[in-house]
Amino acid sequence: MTTIAFIGLGIMGSPMAVHLQKAGFDVIGINRTPEKTAALVEAGGRAAGSIAEAVPDADIVALMVPDSPDVVQVLREDGVLDHARPGTLVIDFSSIRPDIAAELAAEAEEKGLRMLDAPVSGGEPGAINATLSIMVGGAAADFEAAADVFAAVGKTIVHVGPSGAGQTVKAANQLIVAVNMEALAEAIVFLEAYGVDLPAAVEVLGGGLAGSAVLNQKAGKMLDRNFDPGFRIDLHHKDLGIVTAAAREAGVAVPAGALAAQLMGSARANGDGGLDHSGLYRGVARLSGIHHER
Amino acid sequence: MTTIAFIGLGIMGSPMAVHLQKAGFDVIGINRTPEKTAALVEAGGRAAGSIAEAVPDADIVALMVPDSPDVVQVLREDGVLDHARPGTLVIDFSSIRPDIAAELAAEAEEKGLRMLDAPVSGGEPGAINATLSIMVGGAAADFEAAADVFAAVGKTIVHVGPSGAGQTVKAANQLIVAVNMEALAEAIVFLEAYGVDLPAAVEVLGGGLAGSAVLNQKAGKMLDRNFDPGFRIDLHHKDLGIVTAAAREAGVAVPAGALAAQLMGSARANGDGGLDHSGLYRGVARLSGIHHER
Repeated sequence: MTTIAFIGLGIMGSPMAVHLQKAGFDVIGINRTPEKTAALVEAGGRAAGSIAEAVPDADIVALMVPDSPDVVQVLREDGVLDHARPGTLVIDFSSIRPDIAAELAAEAEEKGLRMLDAPVSGGEPGAINATLSIMVGGAAADFEAAADVFAAVGKTIVHVGPSGAGQTVKAANQLIVAVNMEALAEAIVFLEAYGVDLPAAVEVLGGGLAGSAVLNQKAGKMLDRNFDPGFRIDLHHKDLGIVTAAAREAGVAVPAGALAAQLMGSARANGDGGLDHSGLYRGVARLSGIHHER
Repeated sequence: MTTIAFIGLGIMGSPMAVHLQKAGFDVIGINRTPEKTAALVEAGGRAAGSIAEAVPDADIVALMVPDSPDVVQVLREDGVLDHARPGTLVIDFSSIRPDIAAELAAEAEEKGLRMLDAPVSGGEPGAINATLSIMVGGAAADFEAAADVFAAVGKTIVHVGPSGAGQTVKAANQLIVAVNMEALAEAIVFLEAYGVDLPAAVEVLGGGLAGSAVLNQKAGKMLDRNFDPGFRIDLHHKDLGIVTAAAREAGVAVPAGALAAQLMGSARANGDGGLDHSGLYRGVARLSGIHHER
């Protein structure tokens, strides 16, 4: 039986670990807050107290943690790079900086490990329903070796290039989502100002070239002023820092992406960081002198 | 039999007039360039030399012309308002300024006419396949009276409010499309700079929250550098002038829409006005110091 050490059992990681256990893997969960291993243990998995305890027994180590420094810590500080057996496959599902992903993969290779960056899109519903989109960077042989792991948690699973490429595509994904969200928010505030029939307008907009996954999933939240997350502005702000820095590094101009990054930062500055990213609507309303109740 | 005078038999108007003729209406086509009535006549319709000749016989007058001044001219200058019988239903399929649409509807009402603004989305394929999205402003009774006309040319047909509301929704549509297009262009230039597998990246982006009609229909054109129109940058630039002016009038801030309007204008200034609006890609490339062959 293949043993997976799964580090980071949060909103995304917990249902992913449960799907892997149910798919026939032997999953050992490790989390800073030990109570979060409960769902995995209930599904027949195991819980471990530390990386040092769980990782030496694992054939595969999976990570799902919030940000680049978290991945660095989990790998380097009495972490996965010290405790994994040679040949272990490390799959990082976190969304982090592409350059750091490539650097860590090289470091893992020096230790005789194999590493894939495999950030996901689809949010909590995607994790719960095992329908995540997974964009994978690393060696083709390692991508193939991980096929059963990806199939247990995702639906659209694509190898996009060498180490870091998965994170690069995720960065582009977050740029598109943020800009499409801002466009939708501006359109809805504009239409509300003119008093058109909003549900009818959203229906007809969704039927043409203005249609999008963002419109389908988020227009209703904007019309209802319901910004419960979902995916938090704080995290999307982190991701826009990654994409604008990576674009700058490559000498690529991303004016709409940079604007969205500024407006996402403004949303945080106005105390909306804990809201769903559809809360960009509140920023457009504020800019237009419209102040809704939270 | 219901007679329709159809004014403006261009890329959009000609197939729409043909669909109406085939649906059982008696259609009289009027066009500045008389040869453009050929397809309608071949389908069993008639051609007239002027508005003065055709409109007095019509129960319904349909318009599909490029811009606000064209609609004003067709209505006011020895036009529809002078020659239509009282009770005639005027349906303006053109995309024009919402304030002018409302003003003209009021003027039509004074003359005993009924007027709907009914701009469409879906482009030439939508006109040819009779699958247009139609966003309609005007009186509910007039919207219902026009049901058979709309059904002959469209698929998603929605009444969104009083006179001008159709144009307001069309303006919002054009804002969303332009901003989504710019986001896609920036993402693709960014991904190309990092050398990821582009078709694979587009597939996985399309499967998640970054998915959109713009991505489905335009990513391939950007990857192939094929910017044959389609919908021309010149016309989208005109529409962004409408939405930014209407937003300003309403006191609504549309920062991403305004940025897209600037970048669309820059595309024209660089000689790209005749390209498909996916040609925004070329602007992002230029900003990034990348110069492709046309």
